[in-house]
Amino acid sequence: MYRGSVRRHSTVENFEKLSLNQITTDQWNLRDAVEGCARAEIPWIAPWRHKVQETGLKESRKLIKDAGLKVSSLCRGGMFPAATALERQKRIDDNKRAVEEAAELGTDVLVLVCGPSPDRDIISAREMVAEGITQLVPFAESYGVKLGIEPLHPMYAAERSVVVSLDLANTLAEAYRPDQVGVVVDVFHVWWDPDLYNQINRAKGRILGFHVSDWLVPLPDMLKGRGMMGDGVIDIQRIRKAVDEVGYSGPIEVEIFNDQVWSQQGDETLQQIKDTYLKHV
Amino acid sequence: MYRGSVRRHSTVENFEKLSLNQITTDQWNLRDAVEGCARAEIPWIAPWRHKVQETGLKESRKLIKDAGLKVSSLCRGGMFPAATALERQKRIDDNKRAVEEAAELGTDVLVLVCGPSPDRDIISAREMVAEGITQLVPFAESYGVKLGIEPLHPMYAAERSVVVSLDLANTLAEAYRPDQVGVVVDVFHVWWDPDLYNQINRAKGRILGFHVSDWLVPLPDMLKGRGMMGDGVIDIQRIRKAVDEVGYSGPIEVEIFNDQVWSQQGDETLQQIKDTYLKHV
Repeated sequence: MYRGSVRRHSTVENFEKLSLNQITTDQWNLRDAVEGCARAEIPWIAPWRHKVQETGLKESRKLIKDAGLKVSSLCRGGMFPAATALERQKRIDDNKRAVEEAAELGTDVLVLVCGPSPDRDIISAREMVAEGITQLVPFAESYGVKLGIEPLHPMYAAERSVVVSLDLANTLAEAYRPDQVGVVVDVFHVWWDPDLYNQINRAKGRILGFHVSDWLVPLPDMLKGRGMMGDGVIDIQRIRKAVDEVGYSGPIEVEIFNDQVWSQQGDETLQQIKDTYLKHV
Repeated sequence: MYRGSVRRHSTVENFEKLSLNQITTDQWNLRDAVEGCARAEIPWIAPWRHKVQETGLKESRKLIKDAGLKVSSLCRGGMFPAATALERQKRIDDNKRAVEEAAELGTDVLVLVCGPSPDRDIISAREMVAEGITQLVPFAESYGVKLGIEPLHPMYAAERSVVVSLDLANTLAEAYRPDQVGVVVDVFHVWWDPDLYNQINRAKGRILGFHVSDWLVPLPDMLKGRGMMGDGVIDIQRIRKAVDEVGYSGPIEVEIFNDQVWSQQGDETLQQIKDTYLKHV
């Protein structure tokens, strides 16, 4: 009976929302990751653009399709603020390529990491983000692609994104319809936020993705120090419940930047993901 | 005329608000720091409790007084959340000692770093902070000491403080009169916050301290990587202006945790502080 019970918890339907965010197996190229997911019966994958580029867009699409995987999102667009109008236009153009790639790969979500400020004026940089999204929306809509604004942890404010709270992501998204622009909730980026549960409620109908990992203590590295679910201090299940309760029923991406995880066998990582996902998500 | 103008900017009155937060010269003991401030004509100092303990409370008081220095605050009380009621009571007792030390040293501000959560339940930990402050207020009031809640950067949420935004610090403080509990604004901890200027306005009449340093890119270290003012990306002058405009006219502490700063001559550090304070604060 005990073994039967364990097996029941390992059936395919328990993993029906599970998605491998490709950065979690950075040691693998796209083909490796697709084949790994197929072996592990993980039904979703979230490719990264540089990995897609390495393999080729059409080949990536074919590999994913032939393996029967679904694509939860494409990582990533964004990076809107820049010192000159010319450079900002280049960023928009690159975002348009990202939209095309997302559509080609068969996902309707492009994750936006909005970018840092080119100077000390973080307020103006946030206006550049809003302006960039405004320019991108009609193009994305014409491809059936939604823009998912992912607020990053405030420790990345100087180098990766001036959008550092779900509050601000919601405000930016609410200028559009929910089928145009939404938000992506990553527990690593938002767990500290005293206003988190209010902001999840506010995001109802607009959540385009849910990412999990954990915050290790001490954090081994600002960028590459995320942990497997359960190894850190984030109350992942509470956040999962809140996201569920506002009606999010889409895929759940496991997104872990971690040097140690990247140095182990990819198949081992996928098994750890499945084990810790069942226990802690 | 040019030289005369430069000299005018270096007169004592330009530094009348300048305070050395003692951690900035961690290589020095309290006596060294007091003598250094006297040599550099820095009129304020913010001692740390472990340095005071090392020198002795009465001796510390005498050194500071004999040098003619004023004490901007004592660092630090707080650390309220703990797994057991007994341990929480011990923390309160320690906070009472901190209040007594602040009064003895001649400052009316005890800075609170509120502490991390003992487990994954960050919401309950914040309730423990509120409860701890409630217990401490009457005691502090009887000594004429105000409690200054310092929100820390969210990257310290797991290890140092569950109070990670000026919003939450204001909410906690507003349960009391402004002469009982206020907030401390440290640019390093709050610069990323999209709601910063609203929250500074909200804190009007309750700001008990203003701390400066800078956010280096890349950050050399999560704890010991702060920079001298002007070396990073924080718009210090804009934050200073906002704090001034709501009527804060107290001392401005320079608080820099940095291994490289700690390895140089203390007098050199004090000269850098004065130079960068004039230019960037």
